[in-house]
This record gives sequence, C-alpha cells and structure tokens, in this order.
Amino acid sequence: MKKKVAIIMGSDSDLPIMKKAADTLAAFEVPFEVHVMSAHRTPDAAAAFSKNAKENGFGAIIAAAGMAAHLAGVLAAYTTLPVIGVPCKSTNLDGMDALLSTVQMPSGVPVATVAINGAVNAALLCCQMFALSDDALAARLAEKKQKDAEAVMTKDAAVYAEFARA
Amino acid sequence: MKKKVAIIMGSDSDLPIMKKAADTLAAFEVPFEVHVMSAHRTPDAAAAFSKNAKENGFGAIIAAAGMAAHLAGVLAAYTTLPVIGVPCKSTNLDGMDALLSTVQMPSGVPVATVAINGAVNAALLCCQMFALSDDALAARLAEKKQKDAEAVMTKDAAVYAEFARA
Amino acid sequence: MKKKVAIIMGSDSDLPIMKKAADTLAAFEVPFEVHVMSAHRTPDAAAAFSKNAKENGFGAIIAAAGMAAHLAGVLAAYTTLPVIGVPCKSTNLDGMDALLSTVQMPSGVPVATVAINGAVNAALLCCQMFALSDDALAARLAEKKQKDAEAVMTKDAAVYAEFARA
Amino acid sequence: MKKKVAIIMGSDSDLPIMKKAADTLAAFEVPFEVHVMSAHRTPDAAAAFSKNAKENGFGAIIAAAGMAAHLAGVLAAYTTLPVIGVPCKSTNLDGMDALLSTVQMPSGVPVATVAINGAVNAALLCCQMFALSDDALAARLAEKKQKDAEAVMTKDAAVYAEFARA
Amino acid sequence: MKKKVAIIMGSDSDLPIMKKAADTLAAFEVPFEVHVMSAHRTPDAAAAFSKNAKENGFGAIIAAAGMAAHLAGVLAAYTTLPVIGVPCKSTNLDGMDALLSTVQMPSGVPVATVAINGAVNAALLCCQMFALSDDALAARLAEKKQKDAEAVMTKDAAVYAEFARA
Amino acid sequence: MKKKVAIIMGSDSDLPIMKKAADTLAAFEVPFEVHVMSAHRTPDAAAAFSKNAKENGFGAIIAAAGMAAHLAGVLAAYTTLPVIGVPCKSTNLDGMDALLSTVQMPSGVPVATVAINGAVNAALLCCQMFALSDDALAARLAEKKQKDAEAVMTKDAAVYAEFARA
Amino acid sequence: MKKKVAIIMGSDSDLPIMKKAADTLAAFEVPFEVHVMSAHRTPDAAAAFSKNAKENGFGAIIAAAGMAAHLAGVLAAYTTLPVIGVPCKSTNLDGMDALLSTVQMPSGVPVATVAINGAVNAALLCCQMFALSDDALAARLAEKKQKDAEAVMTKDAAVYAEFARA
Amino acid sequence: MKKKVAIIMGSDSDLPIMKKAADTLAAFEVPFEVHVMSAHRTPDAAAAFSKNAKENGFGAIIAAAGMAAHLAGVLAAYTTLPVIGVPCKSTNLDGMDALLSTVQMPSGVPVATVAINGAVNAALLCCQMFALSDDALAARLAEKKQKDAEAVMTKDAAVYAEFARA
Repeated sequence: MKKKVAIIMGSDSDLPIMKKAADTLAAFEVPFEVHVMSAHRTPDAAAAFSKNAKENGFGAIIAAAGMAAHLAGVLAAYTTLPVIGVPCKSTNLDGMDALLSTVQMPSGVPVATVAINGAVNAALLCCQMFALSDDALAARLAEKKQKDAEAVMTKDAAVYAEFARA
Repeated sequence: MKKKVAIIMGSDSDLPIMKKAADTLAAFEVPFEVHVMSAHRTPDAAAAFSKNAKENGFGAIIAAAGMAAHLAGVLAAYTTLPVIGVPCKSTNLDGMDALLSTVQMPSGVPVATVAINGAVNAALLCCQMFALSDDALAARLAEKKQKDAEAVMTKDAAVYAEFARA
Repeated sequence: MKKKVAIIMGSDSDLPIMKKAADTLAAFEVPFEVHVMSAHRTPDAAAAFSKNAKENGFGAIIAAAGMAAHLAGVLAAYTTLPVIGVPCKSTNLDGMDALLSTVQMPSGVPVATVAINGAVNAALLCCQMFALSDDALAARLAEKKQKDAEAVMTKDAAVYAEFARA
Repeated sequence: MKKKVAIIMGSDSDLPIMKKAADTLAAFEVPFEVHVMSAHRTPDAAAAFSKNAKENGFGAIIAAAGMAAHLAGVLAAYTTLPVIGVPCKSTNLDGMDALLSTVQMPSGVPVATVAINGAVNAALLCCQMFALSDDALAARLAEKKQKDAEAVMTKDAAVYAEFARA
Repeated sequence: MKKKVAIIMGSDSDLPIMKKAADTLAAFEVPFEVHVMSAHRTPDAAAAFSKNAKENGFGAIIAAAGMAAHLAGVLAAYTTLPVIGVPCKSTNLDGMDALLSTVQMPSGVPVATVAINGAVNAALLCCQMFALSDDALAARLAEKKQKDAEAVMTKDAAVYAEFARA
Repeated sequence: MKKKVAIIMGSDSDLPIMKKAADTLAAFEVPFEVHVMSAHRTPDAAAAFSKNAKENGFGAIIAAAGMAAHLAGVLAAYTTLPVIGVPCKSTNLDGMDALLSTVQMPSGVPVATVAINGAVNAALLCCQMFALSDDALAARLAEKKQKDAEAVMTKDAAVYAEFARA
Repeated sequence: MKKKVAIIMGSDSDLPIMKKAADTLAAFEVPFEVHVMSAHRTPDAAAAFSKNAKENGFGAIIAAAGMAAHLAGVLAAYTTLPVIGVPCKSTNLDGMDALLSTVQMPSGVPVATVAINGAVNAALLCCQMFALSDDALAARLAEKKQKDAEAVMTKDAAVYAEFARA
Repeated sequence: MKKKVAIIMGSDSDLPIMKKAADTLAAFEVPFEVHVMSAHRTPDAAAAFSKNAKENGFGAIIAAAGMAAHLAGVLAAYTTLPVIGVPCKSTNLDGMDALLSTVQMPSGVPVATVAINGAVNAALLCCQMFALSDDALAARLAEKKQKDAEAVMTKDAAVYAEFARA
C-alpha cells in the first residue's frame, strides 16, 4: 500500500497556503490526510498522531505553523519519519519568527525546512522522498521539472521578442 | 506547604546560565527543583512533568532553551501554571532565534518571556508571583529592590567623585 | 477583596489591541482598571501609579507600548508587582523595536513579555498568577484550555473530512 | 545495492562542520561520498554531478555552503533527488546570509534546509528518507532516539540531585 | 559593433521592475536583449547563455531575481564579463533574502549588486562600464547627471519658495 | 537676529513627512528655511549650503533622507553646527537602511538621529538647543510639555471611565 | 557661568565607553558631571536629577545605556534640555536592542541618538549645541575639524606612497 | 595609457582588508593608486578626487568604508566612472550597517556593491570592466577562473579520497 503524507497545520488560518501542498500531492497521485493540530492547544493529539504515524501508513509529515512555530519540532520529537516544516507568515515580523522557530532545530531532531509559505515545495520534497522507491513517481517528478523548464523558455521567447533592442 | 518553582532547561549546557535562577530563588527562600528535559529529546517526560506540575506542588515553571526554543511553549501547552521562558544564546544568531521562538506564542498559551539569558529575572518573576500571597516574600523583594538602588547610588557617588569636572 | 489588574497603555492608539486584554479579564471575572499613561509624557503619573499599585489593590500590571517601548520597564522600576509587557506594533519596523525595548530588561527588574500585540496572553498570564491562590479561577483557566482544544479538534474534523485523499 | 548519500561542500573550509555529517552516516551504516564542489568555481562539475547522481546510485544530496549559499539550490536545479541544505556560518552576519540563500527557494525546486551548521541533522534526514524502505535503518533511528532520550534523562537525574532545594 | 547588455530575470514577475533597466539602456542608446532564465528551472539555458555571452557580443549581464536569488551568482560562475545583480523584493522579508543572496558572493566570483529593485542603477552601471571606451556614451552620462541635478534644484526652488519662514 | 533652522530633504517625496518639522518650528516661532538638496544628485549645492550655513544665520540643520541616507552625514562633514538626521522610510526594509546610514556615524562627525520619520522630534531638538540661550523659547517648550501631559491625562480619564471594571 | 553637561550611565560597566565622552568634554573645556543612575534601579534619582538639571546649571544630558535602554528616554521625559542617547553594546544582539530602545522615541520627547558606543560624538554634539552661543568653543570645534582632516591627509600621503603602483 | 583604479578607504584601519584589492590588481597588472579619504573628515578632498578622477586617468574607483559607509556614495555623486563599494565590518552590527549604507543607493547614482569585506571581488570587478577593451586582461581573468576551478577540483579529489565510504 502506498505511504501517505500527513499535512498538519497549527491553525486553519493556514489553510489557503497549505491547500497548495494538498493540490501538489494530488497532482502527483500521492495519498494524504489534512489535519489541524496545535502544538500548544492540542498537544496530546499532535503527540499521539506523530507517535502512531508510521504504523498508520504515513511516510512523511508536513507541519505548517506561524509565529513561535513549534509544531514541526514537536511532531519530529515523536517520530523518525521525515518531518517537513513550512514556516507561515503571520501578521508581524514577516515570517522570520516562524522561520527561525522551525529551522533552528537542535542536533538529533531534524526538521526539513522550506521557504516561508513554501507549501508546494514541502509537497515536492515528500514526492522526492517517496520517489526513491517509486519509479513512476520519479518519472512524474522529472516530467514536471521538464514542463517547468519549458514554461520558462516560453516566457523567455515572449519577453525576448517584445523587449530586445539591438 | 510552600509552592515550588521548576527550573527546566533543554540541555545541561544551559546550566551555567540557569544556575543563577536557582541561586536567586534560594536567596529568596523559594523552594525549587532543577531539571534537564527536552521538548525534542524527552517530549513525553516534559509533557508528563507539566501535566502533573500543579498537583506536585509547583506554582510556576521556568523553561530555558536555545535555538528553536520550543521548551517553554511545550510546557505551557500542558499546564495553566505560569510558564516563564528564558531564551538562551547559542553559537549562532546571538539568541534572536531563541527569543522569537519563545516570545511569539499564539493567543491562548502565554509564555512570560525575559531577556536573552535572563535567568535572574525569570526567578524574580516567580518570586513576584508567589509574593502576591506571601507577605514575607514581598518584603524580601522590596528589600532587594532597595539594596539594588543603594548599590547604584554608591557607584554614582564614586564615579561622580572621580570624574566630574566643574 | 480580589486583586485587580491594571491595564496601562502608552497611547490610546493601542486601545483596539488592548481592549482584548480587558475582554479576557472580564471573561475570567478578574477586576481591572484601564489607563492611558505615558512613560514619556506623563512620567510622574506613571511612577505614582506604579508606586501605589500594590496598596491600591492591584496584583499585576499590564503595560502596552510601541516603538521605544519604555512603559513596562518604567512601571517595573517602581513596584515589586509582576509587570507584563505587551510590545505594540507601530508604523515601522514591525514591532521589533517595541519587542526589544520591552523584553531586554536588565537583571533585577523583570518584565514578563508576551508576543507583539499579544494582549490576550497578557491577560491570561495575570489570570494564571492570580489562580495560584484562587481555585475557582484556576478551574476557569482549565475549562478555557479544554474548550480551546475542542475548537481545534472540531476544525480538524472539518478539514480532514474535506481534504484528505486516500 | 544500497543508495548512497553525496555530501558536497562549497569549500573545504566547511570540512570541520561537515565531517559530522559523514560520521553520522557512517554510524548508521549509510554509504556516502564526500566532495568539494562550488556553485561558483566549478559549476560544470557540480551540474554534472547532480545530473548523474541518481543513475550513479545516490539517493540524496547534502549541500553545505556559506555566505550567498547557492550550492544546494544549484544542485537541486539538476536533479529530482531530495537535496538537503546546510547553511554554514562564515565570518560575517552569523550565518543569516547562508540561511536565507538556502531556504528561500522558489516554488518547484525545494531544498530541505536544516539549522545553521546543522550537519548532523542533514545526515539524519537522509537516514529518515532511506529508512522509508529500509526497516533495519528505521530500527537504528528509533534506537538512536531512545538513546538520546536516555542521555537527557541521565543528565536530568544528575542535575536534579545536585541542585533541587525543597 | 557595439557591445550589448543582457537583462536576465529569473521570473517574468520581475518584468515591471526590470523594464526600467531596458528603458534606461534604450535612453542611452545601448543595445540589449531581455530574457527570462531561471537558475533553478532552466539552469542549462542560463549556463549556456553565460558561457557564450562574450562571444555573442555581450559586454555585461544584468541578473534580477528574488528570494534565494541565485541567478546573478550562477551567471557569474560561467563568465568573466561583469555581472550586475538586482535583488528583487518578493512577498516576504522585504527583499533582504534576495539582497544577501546576491551580494554575499565568495572571493573570486563577484556580482556588482545594486539596491533592492534597483533596475535603473543596474543599467546605469552598464553604461558607466561601456563608457570607459565610448566617449559619446560618457557624454550622455554626464549630461544625465547634470539634468538630474537641475531637476533637484528646480524642486528646491519650489519648496523653498513655498515653505521657508523667516 | 534669531538663528534659523535649515530643513533639508534629499527628495521632495519626503515633504509630507518633513512638513511636520516645519509646522513644529513655526508653532515655536523659530525661523527656518526648507530645501531639497541631495547628497548624491546635488552634492556641490549641499556642500556649499553646509559650509556657509553658520555665517548665513543658521543654528542647526535638519537632514531627512531615505535608503542609503547620506545627506545628514554629508552636511555634518562641512559644518560644526549641530545636524539632526531624520531617517525616512522608503519602499523597502522599513526604514532600517536609512536609520543605520544616519546614526552609525564615525567618531568626530556626529549626527543627532531621531526615530524613523521622526520629523516633529527633529524640530523639537532644534528648539531645545536654541532654548539654551532663549528663555522665551524654553518657556514655550515647557508649556508644550505640560499640554502634552494634560492631553494624555484627559485620555486616561476617558478610557478609565469607559473600561474599568471593578 | 558656563553650562555643564551631565554624563549619566545606567551602569558603571559603561564607564570604559563613556570615559571618552568625559575626555572629549574636558578637551573642549566644557564642564561636566559624571553619574551612574538607572532608569530601572534608581528611577526616583534619575527623575529628580532630570527635573532639576536645568536649574542646577546643566545645558545638556548625555545618557548611556544598554539592552532595553530606557535611560535617555526617561530623562527626556522630565526635562526640556536636549538629551543625547548613547546606545551601549551589551553581551547579546550587538547593540541593536539599545539602539532601537534609544532612537525610536515617540513624537514630543526627542532623544538625539548617536552610534552604538558613540560616546565621543555625544560629547561633540553637546559642544556643538553650546557653541551656538560660545564663539570660543565654536572656534575649538572648527580647529578640531581641521586637525582631524589633516590627520587623514597625513595617512593618505603615507598610504599613497607605500601602495600606489603605476 | 592604461586606465588606473583608485582604491580609496575611509580609514587606514581598513588597510588590512583593502590590501587584498591592491594585491589582486597588481596580480592582474592593472595600475592603481591607494588613498585614505573620508566622506566625513576630508569631504573636499574626496569630492575633488572624484571630480577629477576621469581626467586623471582613472577608469574605476573602489571605495571601502564601515558603519554609516557614505564614501562610495559620495564619490559616485561626483563622477560618471563606475564606483565599486566595499562595506567594511566594524566593531558592531557585523557589517550590516555598512552594507545597507553602501548598496541602497537611490536611482541615478549607482554603487556596485560587493560582499562585506569583499576587497578581492571589488578588484576583480574592475578587471572585468577594463577587460571589455583589453583582451590580454580578459585572458588573464579566464586563466584565473580556470585555476580557481582546478584548485577546487584538487581539493575535491583529496577530500573524496579521504572521506568517501562505500
């Protein structure tokens, strides 16, 4: 059975951002669950989820939170599955608080951190991990990479045609 | 029976800083325990400690950690006792990562944050809280405040005598 | 008689933020006063208030200010009551100036600092302190914590139902 | 055949830090290569390495660089293998330049970023990824987590015994 | 034949900013091409462009990118032509990530960095470089400098007349 | 004859901010001139103005600029009159660039720096300086201080009446 | 009688820095007093000093403090004399906390802020202010400016002779 | 006659850093002068130098300064030659003040900024500019790039041999 990804956000205010992670996983045909769990408001639920994630069929956990973003670190404390952290921008400090709270983990408990609000890349990282033992998924990643390149090249042609001045 | 303070640090590398909190509490005759517990390495122990802290006779928890300093927030998640956070300076970023990780808590789960490496003030805050129902302790705080002022005034006199130039 | 909380803001422009502190205290049935006092424009009034706060029946002071936010520190200089600082975001620098001005207090004069604009948590800290000798208040805090958790769990169920894709 | 990890650093001045990644992989019996390749000085070699990494038996790439740390991003541009970025602290700016240059990747090309100088965690992330299809490795990770917890508990007991004051 | 400038942006979302560089070059009668190439999405195209830029008649490359802005550094890796970097402001962090990613280049591979979103100055730098062997262009630069000064002096006269109060 | 203040801004885009400095000086009956001069676009005019400012009857110079705000420093280089710097917030970096460019002057050439966009305080500083030898002006400053205090006390009474809850 | 300058520092740990301010004032024959007064530990003394400074013969106040540097602002609250703030670098955050706490004063209560640890410039600012009505002091300032220029020119000649390579 | 480079530093304390720029230019056989000139202490000399630089045979100016680093901007104000700015790290703020003061130039007056203390790259930029009309210099730059690459490859071989573990 295919391993699932857990997308866990600390607050449903992060949903507009994190929906892109869900969409990306869906596009790559990777199964996933989406949850709202808080390191601070439902710590027992978060701990229990993480402890049992591996045996419940998950292969990776994406954790998204803002401000003093402890969620990724707390989930990582309870599992040896890879945990990907998405620092979310809140009202103040432009996401720097969430970035530092997510990435500066102590030795022994890694969180794979992506850019502020980087939900798509969090999903792609999960796909890349799962593709290590799933050739069809690896092929889809390569195909996506090719399409992204072609999209840039199309734009390049359009911009070149419009603006170059010899 | 007098309420105790729990001084919990995420790593024993924080001990030289946090010993000052212990010394301060001792000077004010406030009982305390000192622990090393990690939000990331011993999350179950930290959670259990915090859940049971109130019934075990604690009245406040001081939590000290560096980098992505989740300890204070994690402890605060499991208790309604006041939690005081001490952001500890680590090798990089001068403690700014620990400060933001400690202070930027979401609504509903406060952490009373003091200055980077501010162990003495963390202990004083506990004393101030306990003094709300302990007049002898309040008197000791007032006396300490008076002595601190006198120490400054003594230095002022010395500096004034040495440097003023009419 | 129940101890009161003083909510003091440096400018009435902070009122929309600080009203949440008042609402929170009211919800927990903790009496309070609300004041506008400035460390810079009415320093004598602020000093007098703080000096007399304890004998006037206050048990804690919440001080909110922006920019070079000296109010909490100035109030803390004149009392041994716990002072909670709320750094307020102003037009520039996203509140970082107020945060550092509030939290980086020197040894001997603590300010219990909460997040930028963290008015609700400032009020909750006061409740937690008062609850050390008020079991009914402690019970209300525990009940609130439970309700907050349930609110997250309800959202979790909704999000899970809508987005999970096996 | 077991997949290898590539540890690539932009300069051999990063070797004292990155040796810990090698030691960690060795301790987990994960094969690896160590390289010095520069996004700026040997860009062709870096590109060629990354393009061929998958077919050459690599399952993940750890890239370590300081200052304007482009190495991880450049390697990620040429592969769909997971790339883990280690921002290295240089002489100035305390590693903040390397952190932002590594983590703030645009959508489509993720870099799994760890803490500044976080070499051990970079290696652990690789182990966690490989463990998704390697139960023995997963067991070693679980065992390591357990030992780390026990080490903290041992320290806790020592500190408790020495410092607690009832 | 006159040397050309290459204006290369990492994404066509940078076009509104970078169009000003094109307009400036056009005003100074310096030929140019405009391209969209990505260090991360079309790394081969970017590398090939830079390797061949000199023999294709380019005398300087302007590279504009946001977030982890690797484009200027990657282009500089493949050429000895001067590369001017324009850090572009993205959604978060106010352009600080792009600035540090662009300017903090290691010894041996310079990027001449201008202000965040400083497209006009990037074009002027190219003109200044080309003017070293083009007296007519040098004269146009001097004339522009004179006109800029006169524009300020005209404003000064207007402001002085309206606001001075003896 | 009364000494004048020169209000000099690097760009007329700073006029909405700096008009408050003019209004403040007018309210205190201090004569002033307003100029647009640029350290970068009209350096000769700025240098000449500063060199001659003292003999032209000026007693202080207020210099306002954004980004790499060199204006105050450049003016201070040519005079021994006090120069007050107003760092202006521009499109990016929230004024931090202007603040550091203005305040971090090397030993020997001071710039008296006020808050970002702090035009009123710049004018008040001039008044304070001139009041050292102008008792009427000193009296107006004292009166203003008193009025500011009363305004806060009026707000305090209003807020107290509306929000306090015993 | 000549007006005096008050040099007030929050802690005698600032003495090595602030001695340079005293030396500078002495060199310019400006009388001064040196004090240790704390906004937080001796707030009444600081307030009293500032309230009475003008009638006690002071013409300006230099206030030096680190961390949450409230001293300059607190003194400025009680006087209409010019207050010059010197942000002092402490153990953490490189003086940024003191800089923001000193410079970001609200409208109505200016603090003339100099560079971090900028004691000499604080003294020079006082001299510049006093020189507005003291021609001999103005002449000394002009002479110092000339000597500083000559010292640079002497170094220029030496460096030019040693390093230029035609 | 070959165009010269002017290396101008604001203080001879920058000499240990800037000597590397001189050494680099010497290695590439580019003539140069070295000067100490200060935007703040010898502004007339700096202005005069810059105004006359072109007719005195200079083709580019390297300006190095720390703190509120105005030197590069001031020189750029007086010339249409390319000006390269080297932000120098001083005692505080890790060079961030100098970086922002150097790079954030307003439209119309560019400064080509390199990394903090990036003296070698400043010299290389000059070589790259001059090489646009000097094929021998261009060849030396290409040769240097090749040697730098080979040095990395030699280190790669050594590190690979010592550390790889299959």
